[in-house]
Amino acid sequence: MNFKIVFKVLGNVLKLESYTLFLPLLAAVHYGEDTTPFLVTIAIAYFAGVALTRIKAERKFYIREGFFTVGLIWVVTGILGAVPFYLSGCFNSIADCLFESYSGFTTTGATILPDIEILPHGITLWRAFTHWLGGMGVLVLATAIMPMLGIRSQYLTQAESPGPVFSKLVPKQSQTSKILYGMYCIMTIILAFCLRIAGMDWFDAILHAFSTAGTGGFSNRNLSIGYYNSMSIDFIIAIFMILFSVNFAIHFLLITRRFREAWRSDELKFFVAIVTVATILICFDISYIYGSSIQTFRQAFFQVAAIISTSGFATTDWVQWPHFSQFVLVVVMLVGACAGSTGGGIKCSRVLILCRAVRREIHQISHPRSVEVVKLDGKVVEEKTIRSVLLFICTYFLIVLMAALVISLDDVTLGVSFSSAVTSISNVGPGLESVGPAFNFSAFSARAKMVMSACMVLGRLEIFPILVLLSPSCWKKQ
Amino acid sequence: MNFKIVFKVLGNVLKLESYTLFLPLLAAVHYGEDTTPFLVTIAIAYFAGVALTRIKAERKFYIREGFFTVGLIWVVTGILGAVPFYLSGCFNSIADCLFESYSGFTTTGATILPDIEILPHGITLWRAFTHWLGGMGVLVLATAIMPMLGIRSQYLTQAESPGPVFSKLVPKQSQTSKILYGMYCIMTIILAFCLRIAGMDWFDAILHAFSTAGTGGFSNRNLSIGYYNSMSIDFIIAIFMILFSVNFAIHFLLITRRFREAWRSDELKFFVAIVTVATILICFDISYIYGSSIQTFRQAFFQVAAIISTSGFATTDWVQWPHFSQFVLVVVMLVGACAGSTGGGIKCSRVLILCRAVRREIHQISHPRSVEVVKLDGKVVEEKTIRSVLLFICTYFLIVLMAALVISLDDVTLGVSFSSAVTSISNVGPGLESVGPAFNFSAFSARAKMVMSACMVLGRLEIFPILVLLSPSCWKKQ
Repeated sequence: MNFKIVFKVLGNVLKLESYTLFLPLLAAVHYGEDTTPFLVTIAIAYFAGVALTRIKAERKFYIREGFFTVGLIWVVTGILGAVPFYLSGCFNSIADCLFESYSGFTTTGATILPDIEILPHGITLWRAFTHWLGGMGVLVLATAIMPMLGIRSQYLTQAESPGPVFSKLVPKQSQTSKILYGMYCIMTIILAFCLRIAGMDWFDAILHAFSTAGTGGFSNRNLSIGYYNSMSIDFIIAIFMILFSVNFAIHFLLITRRFREAWRSDELKFFVAIVTVATILICFDISYIYGSSIQTFRQAFFQVAAIISTSGFATTDWVQWPHFSQFVLVVVMLVGACAGSTGGGIKCSRVLILCRAVRREIHQISHPRSVEVVKLDGKVVEEKTIRSVLLFICTYFLIVLMAALVISLDDVTLGVSFSSAVTSISNVGPGLESVGPAFNFSAFSARAKMVMSACMVLGRLEIFPILVLLSPSCWKKQ
Repeated sequence: MNFKIVFKVLGNVLKLESYTLFLPLLAAVHYGEDTTPFLVTIAIAYFAGVALTRIKAERKFYIREGFFTVGLIWVVTGILGAVPFYLSGCFNSIADCLFESYSGFTTTGATILPDIEILPHGITLWRAFTHWLGGMGVLVLATAIMPMLGIRSQYLTQAESPGPVFSKLVPKQSQTSKILYGMYCIMTIILAFCLRIAGMDWFDAILHAFSTAGTGGFSNRNLSIGYYNSMSIDFIIAIFMILFSVNFAIHFLLITRRFREAWRSDELKFFVAIVTVATILICFDISYIYGSSIQTFRQAFFQVAAIISTSGFATTDWVQWPHFSQFVLVVVMLVGACAGSTGGGIKCSRVLILCRAVRREIHQISHPRSVEVVKLDGKVVEEKTIRSVLLFICTYFLIVLMAALVISLDDVTLGVSFSSAVTSISNVGPGLESVGPAFNFSAFSARAKMVMSACMVLGRLEIFPILVLLSPSCWKKQ
């Protein structure tokens, strides 16, 4: 392992993080709030960054270094992001600050704060901004850094499915990144304008645009989006949550008017089907609660969009719904968004490949001499890709069970421990029962909070980079 | 599909089932109870059997027919086994009778009866005997019928792991089956004697011996084994549950004094490790409840043995334990017993292969040029076997989620719906909260009961034979 180059790259990222902190600093200055949390963090990040970038390193950078760097960046960025929280004095413990920071950067949006509305503007903006940065980080990771590192296809959703992959759409890597940043920024700006027009003030509109773009879920209101009680705001956010959880390569196809190509994506069809089915099931189940059918649809669609995009916003306390609707949301939580989006979860393409692999297995038993392949978007999925997808899903469940086991040491029910683990690894936010959308994670022990934070990072980075970081064989100097 | 031969085989099995019903009939006669339920069922089974065996069929019997036959036998046997329950008048509905019968034959041991002690002796004996028959059925399936049909290795746990496989130990198939039946019967008889000596009366001893051998869990006491409140009975049953959940090929090695070969089994070591770790974790967690450490160990070990063997006997209402211990039991439920035993669950060998596949994946990321294989018992596991194992585990979770989703329509918590699905597919018996060991499944809707029954059969037959039965492509005449 070439540690020097790893730290050099980390240094650059830290310098970048110090610049991003100027936005919440600006907000703090504007609203006349305490600026020290941000000034101190900027100083730490900048000087640490400069020191690390001065390291002289060989330009040896292989797959192992790539995974290690990505893992390390997320761990360190999260710790640094917690510093303003700690210095603000609004949080009870270091574990709480770390939980909130990881929840932000991983675009989870679970909070340990019982009352968000007492926070200064700078801090709430920083919370939402971490979502936006995290969301962009994942996009860059999936579409720019990973292919650049030449990482083998099987470790990344992107390349795992032969579906539309961004880097295949334009020839140059630098161009890809630019288009991607551009689309992400423009969509965020459009969303902010829409929210302003729909009635939010500028601060709230920008904050929620950041949160939605990163499919995070932090709000500056205790009631989340429910606070505004506006149908137009609900539908704007719901639609943008859906948009941000679609593969960005599809958006690119749409922008360049290649509609047919876009609709050829099996993952997109599968995603649309899940959203539709889940919304219909929940509509039937909750119709007795909300008088009119439009209100029922509004609540069902918003919640499904919030959960499948893994944002975790809420317009109602859905743990009061019948348990069937809640279970639908848990299943949707596990499935998650499309690959190549800012959303989390197992990802639609993986679930689709699993379903097709099961179908093939059944067919092959009854027709043992037939040779069948699994296809996606009309292209054959390689056997080793299928194996990787299956391994990923198994590992996902393995981690959920192990995490829930540790969380259950807090003597919470299976509903709470299991849903906490799922919501963490899928980067959603709320869970069931006492961790529902109207509640928070403050009551958990520091141990449980650390486990959930770890799950968030594991889920966000699609598990294996972090496992590599933890494996002893990786730490050997070679 | 050659339906004629399928029905001919089914006919033979039905005739066999009619003979087995003489045992509970005998008990009914002995205790002066109503014999009609058994006489009628014997008549139905016998004449249906005779009629079907008269079918003239070609001797074309391939893999497809094999899977189809196995699936059909279990479905029909279960329905027929429900007839005595229905005729006895002790059950509320047909759904209840079917649930109890499938729960019996699949060796699950979940009941919908609030009070078992009011049942006639004949019926309670039939319930326990279905466990014994089901357990033997699975053994025969795994070691005699499946290899006889030349079914490809990947569909069966047995052959999936290169661990000790029964059919490889002795050259002749007929000899294998005889040894197997012999061991199963002798172990059951020894157990019955042990229980008699420990203080049970003959009827209870025989009944519990049947239940334990099949790793089922039906008792004739509402408090299950807790009724006897005897440490010697607890330990006898716990040890035999463990014995019956070990691969029978290992027992054969032990009987023939090939101790080293037996201990070379990775699955056995893994199984022992899980039992040990789970028992220790629970001991620490519940030590404050039971005064002495021997009492703590007794309760922890018995419950772990009952769950990992997927028997589901209970000596205490463990849903009163802290939630961590309950979660440990849920994890153990999912893992289940060894392959080639009468126990259910995912099976230790599969979980072990999963763990080693994850380890390899991590190692390969950091050492991309190394070529690594997954080994079991020192032998290389084929890549397609690994894929099948991963597919099996994914499908297992998929079915658990789908089943729990339907169960949640009864508006039960995630703890109840999830644990009901797990306990059904793993053939354990009790679940959490309102389906704990002190409760029963009577409160569920017929829909939920049918789904659970289906899960039991799916789990018992390792999923794929039943999925083949349900696939339309299988029903085409060719």
